[in-house]
Amino acid sequence: MESERTNSSTPKGRGVNFSAPRSFFLKFSCKCKETFFPDDPFKPISQEPNGLMKTKKTLQYFVPIFEWLPKYNLQKLRYDVLAGITITSLAVPQGISYANLAGIPPIIGLYSSFVPPFVYAVLGSSHTLAVGTVAACSLLIAETFGEELLKTDPNLYLHLIFTSAFVTGVFQFALGFFRLGMLVDFLSHSTITGFMGGTAIIILLQQLKGVFGIVHFTHKTDVVSVLHSVFSHRDEWKWQSSLAGVCFLIFLQSTRYIKKIKPKLFWVSAMGPMVVVLVGCLVAFLVKGTEHGIKTVGPLKKGLNPPSIQYLTFDAKYLPLVLKAGIVTGLIALAEGIAIGRSFAVMKNEQTDGNKEMIAFGLMNIIGSFTSCYLTTGPFSKTAVNYNAGTKTPMSNIVMGFCMMLVLLFLAPVFSYTPLVALAAIIMSAMLGLIDYEEMYHLFKVDKFDFLVCMSAFFGVSFISMDYGLIISVGFSVLRALLYVARPSTCKLGRIPNSVMFRDIEQYPGAEEMLGYVILQMGSPIFFANSTYVRERILRWIRDEPEGVEFLLLDLSGVSSVDMTGMETLLEVRRILVSKGIKMVIINPRFEVLEKMMLSHFVEKIGKEYVFLSIDDAVQACRFNLSTTAKPEP
Amino acid sequence: MESERTNSSTPKGRGVNFSAPRSFFLKFSCKCKETFFPDDPFKPISQEPNGLMKTKKTLQYFVPIFEWLPKYNLQKLRYDVLAGITITSLAVPQGISYANLAGIPPIIGLYSSFVPPFVYAVLGSSHTLAVGTVAACSLLIAETFGEELLKTDPNLYLHLIFTSAFVTGVFQFALGFFRLGMLVDFLSHSTITGFMGGTAIIILLQQLKGVFGIVHFTHKTDVVSVLHSVFSHRDEWKWQSSLAGVCFLIFLQSTRYIKKIKPKLFWVSAMGPMVVVLVGCLVAFLVKGTEHGIKTVGPLKKGLNPPSIQYLTFDAKYLPLVLKAGIVTGLIALAEGIAIGRSFAVMKNEQTDGNKEMIAFGLMNIIGSFTSCYLTTGPFSKTAVNYNAGTKTPMSNIVMGFCMMLVLLFLAPVFSYTPLVALAAIIMSAMLGLIDYEEMYHLFKVDKFDFLVCMSAFFGVSFISMDYGLIISVGFSVLRALLYVARPSTCKLGRIPNSVMFRDIEQYPGAEEMLGYVILQMGSPIFFANSTYVRERILRWIRDEPEGVEFLLLDLSGVSSVDMTGMETLLEVRRILVSKGIKMVIINPRFEVLEKMMLSHFVEKIGKEYVFLSIDDAVQACRFNLSTTAKPEP
Repeated sequence: MESERTNSSTPKGRGVNFSAPRSFFLKFSCKCKETFFPDDPFKPISQEPNGLMKTKKTLQYFVPIFEWLPKYNLQKLRYDVLAGITITSLAVPQGISYANLAGIPPIIGLYSSFVPPFVYAVLGSSHTLAVGTVAACSLLIAETFGEELLKTDPNLYLHLIFTSAFVTGVFQFALGFFRLGMLVDFLSHSTITGFMGGTAIIILLQQLKGVFGIVHFTHKTDVVSVLHSVFSHRDEWKWQSSLAGVCFLIFLQSTRYIKKIKPKLFWVSAMGPMVVVLVGCLVAFLVKGTEHGIKTVGPLKKGLNPPSIQYLTFDAKYLPLVLKAGIVTGLIALAEGIAIGRSFAVMKNEQTDGNKEMIAFGLMNIIGSFTSCYLTTGPFSKTAVNYNAGTKTPMSNIVMGFCMMLVLLFLAPVFSYTPLVALAAIIMSAMLGLIDYEEMYHLFKVDKFDFLVCMSAFFGVSFISMDYGLIISVGFSVLRALLYVARPSTCKLGRIPNSVMFRDIEQYPGAEEMLGYVILQMGSPIFFANSTYVRERILRWIRDEPEGVEFLLLDLSGVSSVDMTGMETLLEVRRILVSKGIKMVIINPRFEVLEKMMLSHFVEKIGKEYVFLSIDDAVQACRFNLSTTAKPEP
Repeated sequence: MESERTNSSTPKGRGVNFSAPRSFFLKFSCKCKETFFPDDPFKPISQEPNGLMKTKKTLQYFVPIFEWLPKYNLQKLRYDVLAGITITSLAVPQGISYANLAGIPPIIGLYSSFVPPFVYAVLGSSHTLAVGTVAACSLLIAETFGEELLKTDPNLYLHLIFTSAFVTGVFQFALGFFRLGMLVDFLSHSTITGFMGGTAIIILLQQLKGVFGIVHFTHKTDVVSVLHSVFSHRDEWKWQSSLAGVCFLIFLQSTRYIKKIKPKLFWVSAMGPMVVVLVGCLVAFLVKGTEHGIKTVGPLKKGLNPPSIQYLTFDAKYLPLVLKAGIVTGLIALAEGIAIGRSFAVMKNEQTDGNKEMIAFGLMNIIGSFTSCYLTTGPFSKTAVNYNAGTKTPMSNIVMGFCMMLVLLFLAPVFSYTPLVALAAIIMSAMLGLIDYEEMYHLFKVDKFDFLVCMSAFFGVSFISMDYGLIISVGFSVLRALLYVARPSTCKLGRIPNSVMFRDIEQYPGAEEMLGYVILQMGSPIFFANSTYVRERILRWIRDEPEGVEFLLLDLSGVSSVDMTGMETLLEVRRILVSKGIKMVIINPRFEVLEKMMLSHFVEKIGKEYVFLSIDDAVQACRFNLSTTAKPEP
């Protein structure tokens, strides 16, 4: 049986390591590495012995296609072709729908599913992600540039959207290159859940325009304006359109239901939108729908993406708008794409690299903006379908790209008959799947603050606007982080009977307090922002003690950082305690904390004999050596 | 000799407390108390048995004069009268000087040392603080409202300054009342050091105007503009003024030097400014200085503070300026006043209550703004003199108030002869004492980030402007807090030989690692903002292990908070590990963390048998029960 001490009368035999602090540059480089390269990405490269292998590994690191393509085989191709065709059947209707949502020509939506998938297939590290446009960002772009500009100068509007996609690309690339992925982390899962839910609500409601065939509709996105707009134009409602919309929606929802009860039939739900579009086209073509109040998408030209690099405009008048749209949608697209890529990677026991993904997304959008594409990322719906279809590698994106090429070259005109109401039904059905009630309820049950963050995004987006909703929600998240730093939780420890363990007496009511000792476990960090609190809290623990206190033991095991103000606070507490005849003892300061304590002469001021490696050592020493009423050792 | 375990074969006899989590409202009220009432201020009141005593204690709590006045005696009065007279001799020249700096009539500076001290004496909890105007805030006010307004409409300018003092008062009162003192905590000691230093530099340089007697001077406050202004108007330099200035400055600096080498002679330095003013007045009167290029303060009326409540203007045009000036100066004044009050209280083993101080400062400024006073707080210079003069209670402020009354009633006209150059010398001498080189060097040596925060305030204030300097510095501080949350430091533990203690192997190189085990001490918190980092870091520790890993032990003793994203990250890590055949074990989750883990079914998912109270328990269990290659117990 091991014992805590080899000899109970010499607890100092095994003391705190007071060796000289590390140099500033060593500490600084450690800090930088932890901050920007926590995953140490270049280690496998530097471990390679010879130069050729090093080059190969480096190339594979930066361009992942060189890693999976050499190992590719026909077996995998079968799966990827199947998955590629399935996601194409989703990409066509979604591309047209979301372009419509963004207020740009529907063909741009198709273009956006042709070039970007190739770029991602070469550079992306996720093997499941399917590239495409997303509803939330499409609407956010439309909201930023405004319907007025769209009406007065649709060409300029389109060019600004290309430019904002370019800005998004550069921003995403820069984030990845400078390894600032942590910015995306501040969009927490709760924020994204709420934001997606709120966006889904407002997009859903906006589709009522298409379903009812309303002509005069508000430009605002908030729930109140949209509902008011829907019901104040009841005279414009068209029964033909409404009937078709309801039928399509019921059909789509039932395909989703089929998928839900029989996951193997995922392709039914994946093909659903395509079926709706084709049926819609057929009906519109046969009954000459336009004459009966059913509006269609309108002419779609054959042919591949024309270049658009000459359209990028950096006019000072619109630059703030372009930057805002580019950066905000870039962040949201990243947060969504990375989160989705990661969750599917976990299911398949693969790993994705956040910073590499950002570079891939960034280049995808830069090249996209040169070839008439607007913002693309990894949307949830497409990626889920891709996963269910059994994709093995990013080859499915390449297959989708080829399929889209065929569509663009030969089939595009067919889709010009697509009724708007079919698109509305497709969008509505997709949006219904994005409101994650269960997750919200789970947040409510487990963490009320997370629920608040989620709800502020949800209601902010629904009732104010998309960007304000996001800002409020992120604001609450940051507030939480700051509150955490401002109020690190302290607790009082007691000894677990028959052991040398000391635990929170509130959590373990059986833990024994010792007369004359107050043992506190300090929360981390001890910082300028909480120094007053830490001081008040310690003094209150002492004041609350019914009997006299002789020793205050501060367990710093959990404190990973202190700053100057924090250290001065500890000294101040000590001065106050000394005047009351109480001795302060420090226990197990961690590496960085102890270094700073030695540099600032804190240890000298309180004395090395008051710093211990464990609570038990300290209690023993207090009993035998430090006590004013010292008893001789037994 | 105690042992870690009573029986090594049953480490589960003393397990984690999995009892049901507390209710939300209990947790919420605990959180609120920790956040807003960490010092539990009403406990002494609620502990009183009968109603009368309760009322008395409550009164004493809110109006501290009732606490010290009944115990007052002649002995204390002697000290307080001496201290009061000493600080009056400082208050007169400083009042005139700082009013001059703020661009308001000098008499306002004298008024500001008459009413506020009485208010503070009744409500303030510090026994050392001396009330008065401060240079930094005076300049900041002048900078906010701008010289242009001062020239076009000096009356409006003055009224806006009264209004901003009112806003400051209301803001300070509200902060104290709603117990939001933590906002002030975000102005760290390093920020204040840098801000004071930078302000001292620009005020010093501005005084060159007075010393050289320059007429045309820049309105900007940054170093470059001011120096350019000084040297581009060399034709306006007056030798008489410069000579007088240098003499006064040498005299004042030598009184400070005397105090430094003989602290008992503090009164020499305290009386210095008064001597300079009186000598200046005498010389100016005798030689008719104004005719020789020595400008004086100008007419000062006899009489007490006239009411100014009717001048408070809340004109929408100036309201943003007023609010900005009021709130920014309010925060700085609070940070300075509270910090100074606290540091002197510590020297005298007294306690001050931050939130109560805010209420006192707030009411002092509200009442001040009604009686022709501008912003007052507890300036360092006056408080230090008060302390050295041996003040015992806030009675010294009352004495100062009475002395100021006498000055205002009878002596004010005497000071109208004060040469501006004497004021400039007084301000310069005071400012030289505010640049704390030693503290800055100390910060540089101990904490580079604190030094960065300090220097950003210092150079921001000197070269850009006071508010930007402050914002940049606070920005860095908040960035640090957020970085701390985004990158909680993890470390790998090893067993200290012959013990059951596990410590950082980097800090204690003698600690032994165990084959097949990776033991990590997690940093706090595990949050949305760091979940990616935590995941990458854990996986890297595992990847870096040269031999195979069978168990990952996560010591959560130091983790005081997790959120949903954090918990999902831990589950994600576990899924990845399980696929690699590694088992994840959780050690000593704290109260709040365990509650959340149980609410979110985290514990169910990983299994209660994977949660332990101590690392040693876990290691024993891993060895005997959880191992796949389980050996029979010995």
